[in-house]
Amino acid sequence: MHVFYSKERKGNILILEGGEVKHFRVRRIEKEEEFGVIYEGKIYLCKVEREEKSRVICKIVGQLETKEPPKNITLYQCITVELKTMDTIVRQITELGVKKFVPVISERSFRKKEIIKKRLEKWKKIAVEAMKQAKRPVHLQVSEPMELEELEPIHEENIVLDNFYEGIKVRNVNLTAENFGIVVGPEGGFSEKEGRILRENGFKSVILEPYTLSKFS
Amino acid sequence: MHVFYSKERKGNILILEGGEVKHFRVRRIEKEEEFGVIYEGKIYLCKVEREEKSRVICKIVGQLETKEPPKNITLYQCITVELKTMDTIVRQITELGVKKFVPVISERSFRKKEIIKKRLEKWKKIAVEAMKQAKRPVHLQVSEPMELEELEPIHEENIVLDNFYEGIKVRNVNLTAENFGIVVGPEGGFSEKEGRILRENGFKSVILEPYTLSKFS
Repeated sequence: MHVFYSKERKGNILILEGGEVKHFRVRRIEKEEEFGVIYEGKIYLCKVEREEKSRVICKIVGQLETKEPPKNITLYQCITVELKTMDTIVRQITELGVKKFVPVISERSFRKKEIIKKRLEKWKKIAVEAMKQAKRPVHLQVSEPMELEELEPIHEENIVLDNFYEGIKVRNVNLTAENFGIVVGPEGGFSEKEGRILRENGFKSVILEPYTLSKFS
Repeated sequence: MHVFYSKERKGNILILEGGEVKHFRVRRIEKEEEFGVIYEGKIYLCKVEREEKSRVICKIVGQLETKEPPKNITLYQCITVELKTMDTIVRQITELGVKKFVPVISERSFRKKEIIKKRLEKWKKIAVEAMKQAKRPVHLQVSEPMELEELEPIHEENIVLDNFYEGIKVRNVNLTAENFGIVVGPEGGFSEKEGRILRENGFKSVILEPYTLSKFS
């Protein structure tokens, strides 16, 4: 089933606008065909009421059962040197149900804050596309970039993943926790100093042994 | 540190041949520089003894601590319709420490057995490259293709991952087991009939809720 995304509801009507209209027309939805529309954390089953030049008016005929993400996860992702890799990360974490995404500037990450800020809009768009495809009813929250030193352990479990020599194993993380803050380095990992700062600031190192993973491309 | 792969040892000497010689020259290793050479499940620390036209003679000067994969996992992967996706899968499962890879022909998978058989050599090469990059000392075993109906639950835990409506959750799998057989579908998943066959043959369905994951590309 095709899924679209609406920002406007009027009674029993959901309205598609902008890129969603284009997406709708590409899909060639038939008159009586049912499709999904995501609106404010729910997915509604809809049919076309009528098509206008720049809008599609959809009639709600039902509601799909939506599924909560199993955990409340915030990903603090150091910006990869190859910015394109971030696009893939945003898409995949949306599908996986990560709640919030915080781009982080670290020593070995891409560091030009102005360029990163300009990418935020692109990442939000990618997250919406992935949300539709994955039938995820809630948005991925995309935050403003932060510096690594500013990160605080505000979650129930606060962990940092890297090829550290010291740290706990994944199986020793408290997996019954509901709230996780996870810090992930860029392609070159963290510097020793950064590893120390994160640990001192209250993040637990988790060792991802045994092998070296390449970045996905 | 750069890592190469040798098939031949003579006493304290490891020999690089073929593609490894090319890889070695690209890396421009210096006379006294140390590098790793994988040979029969171990990684040795080596220096160049001498370079010949089509071989590099390496002197063993030490041995790196090698890490066993945490679990013994066999992946039964239904061949993706886009064959290129299989290359990525092979690379990533090598990095992750999967022990054995069995390409599987299913209803909605790529189905031409002769073409699949021809790809086996390519997948073995990709696995060797990934092994070197990940500093994994043991080969990924690449098996001949099998038909889905032939799969047998020969491991301690035998599971099938898909968007099934019935099945257990990941947290209910016996994660303390040492041996896993994991069946994964192609892009379009399994047919209902295939889901039934796998369950009847002794594979446990594991539900990967809540969202729909796109294939990685």
